[in-house]
Amino acid sequence: MNVGGRALRPLRALPSREGIEIIDQRELPHALRMRTLSSPDEVFVAIREMWLRGAPLIGAAAAYGYAMASRIDASDAALDRAAARLADARPTAVNLAWALERIQRRVRTQPMRERAAAAWAEAEAIAEEDVAVNAAIGRAGLSLLLAIAARRTGPVRVLTHCNAGWLATVDWGTATAPLYLAHAQGVPLQVWVDETRPRNQGASLTAWELTQAGVPCTLVADNAGGHLMQRGQVDLVIVGCDRVTANADVCNKIGTYLKALAAHDSGVPFYVAMPTSTLDLTLASGSDIPIEERSAREVTHAAGRDAEGRVIEVQLAADGVPAANPAFDVTPARLVTGLITEHGIVAANEGALRALAELRR
Amino acid sequence: MNVGGRALRPLRALPSREGIEIIDQRELPHALRMRTLSSPDEVFVAIREMWLRGAPLIGAAAAYGYAMASRIDASDAALDRAAARLADARPTAVNLAWALERIQRRVRTQPMRERAAAAWAEAEAIAEEDVAVNAAIGRAGLSLLLAIAARRTGPVRVLTHCNAGWLATVDWGTATAPLYLAHAQGVPLQVWVDETRPRNQGASLTAWELTQAGVPCTLVADNAGGHLMQRGQVDLVIVGCDRVTANADVCNKIGTYLKALAAHDSGVPFYVAMPTSTLDLTLASGSDIPIEERSAREVTHAAGRDAEGRVIEVQLAADGVPAANPAFDVTPARLVTGLITEHGIVAANEGALRALAELRR
Repeated sequence: MNVGGRALRPLRALPSREGIEIIDQRELPHALRMRTLSSPDEVFVAIREMWLRGAPLIGAAAAYGYAMASRIDASDAALDRAAARLADARPTAVNLAWALERIQRRVRTQPMRERAAAAWAEAEAIAEEDVAVNAAIGRAGLSLLLAIAARRTGPVRVLTHCNAGWLATVDWGTATAPLYLAHAQGVPLQVWVDETRPRNQGASLTAWELTQAGVPCTLVADNAGGHLMQRGQVDLVIVGCDRVTANADVCNKIGTYLKALAAHDSGVPFYVAMPTSTLDLTLASGSDIPIEERSAREVTHAAGRDAEGRVIEVQLAADGVPAANPAFDVTPARLVTGLITEHGIVAANEGALRALAELRR
Repeated sequence: MNVGGRALRPLRALPSREGIEIIDQRELPHALRMRTLSSPDEVFVAIREMWLRGAPLIGAAAAYGYAMASRIDASDAALDRAAARLADARPTAVNLAWALERIQRRVRTQPMRERAAAAWAEAEAIAEEDVAVNAAIGRAGLSLLLAIAARRTGPVRVLTHCNAGWLATVDWGTATAPLYLAHAQGVPLQVWVDETRPRNQGASLTAWELTQAGVPCTLVADNAGGHLMQRGQVDLVIVGCDRVTANADVCNKIGTYLKALAAHDSGVPFYVAMPTSTLDLTLASGSDIPIEERSAREVTHAAGRDAEGRVIEVQLAADGVPAANPAFDVTPARLVTGLITEHGIVAANEGALRALAELRR
């Protein structure tokens, strides 16, 4: 997407194939800083420490990390170790495991001397497919926005949680792809952006993305969405996802479940933008998903820009107050109106997901 | 309540009757600073700018503000003006209007020369009654905690939102009163404290209060409560309220509604601690309550302590990102298990509330 007239992606392979250049998302929205990652270890740290994040994006980054590992040692044992370590960086999103399995499958069948080139080509394919998949999600979701626009005069009012924007993918975003397409077609939009504590990806990433693209948006505390829906100020909720299980339970950023409950209570359609790579048919239901517990410090502190322009952390709670920080929650399928996929809009039930999985074989 | 072995209240009348001394809650939990308010204007500013907050506490503070006004000019017109201005400081909580109506009724029937003394005495009565009411709420709510403690071995796990603690009242708190009583009786507790963005009253006030009193608590992002309930980690939700309407709809801090939805979805009892002064039978339902819209800056920024120990604000969103900040929401009566009042636990329906109102006549 464009930032200040310049086409940017959150991850770009260096033409030399010596590494990847990423946007360091920890600095946004206060600074747009690029970093080069040129070893599997650097990719591991960047994923674990959330220099880059978002289920599709960390899948693509991990694939490049694997490709970098294959240049150092392309033996079966070394590649298995590299894949296992990269998969370990974040436990919840399935795209990471999916991308690593895909690249392993492609590379392990090659002779040793061709593995490095094959791995790089596969990482590039994963990244480019992500762009195409998200564009297709955008086209599928656009129909929902156009239908709402056709029946009301004001803007289409969409609420989103966390960042499932272009910064969470190689391009377009998942939940934002329909918004960017609609905006390009002149559909008036008003996007409610949940702040998304504790890491504030809504405030720092989604609001920045949408503003850069000229899409009207309003930041709200995570607490506000239920009230907005109750008062008829939301036409549609679209969120992303980190893992969807066989029964269509949706694991996404902590707090998503609360918005799904509110949407259900007020009769607001609740859609999940899902590339099929986020589908995990090996798990029966959402209660089987490992939920990442992150540092208490993310809750007791908040990061932002001080009066001198420096990005610093401030402490919110008194010294010694303990905190818990589950990073994801599970929205039961019964609260999901539909899944917006690259193959169209799909019902949130096991039959529909199994049929969808057949398409990706 | 005790802070470091010293008995403290968030509001105390000066023995000289020249004003009140309050804890400046904007500085908590990083500094415990007292301020003296000695004019109605100072009380107005302190309420509007949230130096002190909490529905019962601002009612008592407003009564003292009115008493200060009655010393300056005790004419009917001046007192009416003073009451109207104080009532205007915060629009949502009904206790402010309730306390001012009560003191007006008492004072306006007195001869001019006795009005100042009568007003001060009535403000003191309002404050002392608040303490007694909250202690009674504590005794009523204690029964719920004891019942849970009787059927499980670990601690009773309670989730609360915002601060309905002793800092929100003259003493004891409303939602916390049962917790303090249970703790004093040796009932093991584990309190989940919602951070409560955008002003973080949970992180800065409730977690501080409970920690000072030795009640085990864990701070969580507002997004986390649904997940905790889904996973069976919450036995009971207790929140405070700012206004309860005739049909038992509950207006409280923004985000309360989301927790009520989650409690309902997971079968967790959801109780509201309500002094009867918070009951507003003049409104039929929650949709009639004016919802205060506060500054966007509370959402785009967060206040906390920096590495040098100064309390500062940091900016979370990019420059120019608009924000909306509704400060309260309405939880429909159908989601409320019961109201914990000074007269016992009351069902959330109009008949029960009208019977309760008869008791306070």
